[in-house]
Amino acid sequence: MELNKVIEMGILFDFYKELLTEKQREAVNLYYYEDYSLGEISENLEISRQGVYDTLKRAEKILQDYEKKLNLVEKFNKRNKLMESLYEKVVDIKEEIKVDNNFNGLVPKIENLEEICRELLR
Amino acid sequence: MELNKVIEMGILFDFYKELLTEKQREAVNLYYYEDYSLGEISENLEISRQGVYDTLKRAEKILQDYEKKLNLVEKFNKRNKLMESLYEKVVDIKEEIKVDNNFNGLVPKIENLEEICRELLR
Repeated sequence: MELNKVIEMGILFDFYKELLTEKQREAVNLYYYEDYSLGEISENLEISRQGVYDTLKRAEKILQDYEKKLNLVEKFNKRNKLMESLYEKVVDIKEEIKVDNNFNGLVPKIENLEEICRELLR
Repeated sequence: MELNKVIEMGILFDFYKELLTEKQREAVNLYYYEDYSLGEISENLEISRQGVYDTLKRAEKILQDYEKKLNLVEKFNKRNKLMESLYEKVVDIKEEIKVDNNFNGLVPKIENLEEICRELLR
């Protein structure tokens, strides 16, 4: 199984799993999270190997179609990058004040935090 | 039309409109955003008044069902409250430093920012 595909499906599944049917959810979970083979899933869910394959393909298409429309993963990644950079900057400021007692240049740094917050609120 | 209903539909529409059909989107937009009557929408979209009513009811149900499954509005509101409080605290810190040159008690305040960031990254 291609690694990129596994990662893509894992992320999409995280966001949109509630929109799949119970059977689709089980098949995706066993295949992508538990690393079961098609044959093992077939035994487990008591559907044919071809049925498992079709269920997985259908579920993948559904997840990708929702992402095309809602872009939740894309928006989440964008926002998360901003949040991480904000967090790192706050920790930097804390270290500077705590360790070095260095208050120089604090105003532009705080203003930078402010800007990132505003961007996150947009 | 009940105000709470209008607000609820407006917010749900913002989040999930891409999941409606073109006709449902138009009807919801005209009714909830442009404040058209059922009769006006009926003329505009060239469907019966009953057809407009059914389309709106169906669209409302779809939007509510997606929110029940994905909780995007709920998650967004929660995160936004945190983001706003973070933003206000950053502005407070800036004012204290800039206006009063007051560096006292800065460490716990920065640590508080850090905590909120961590919560937002969860």
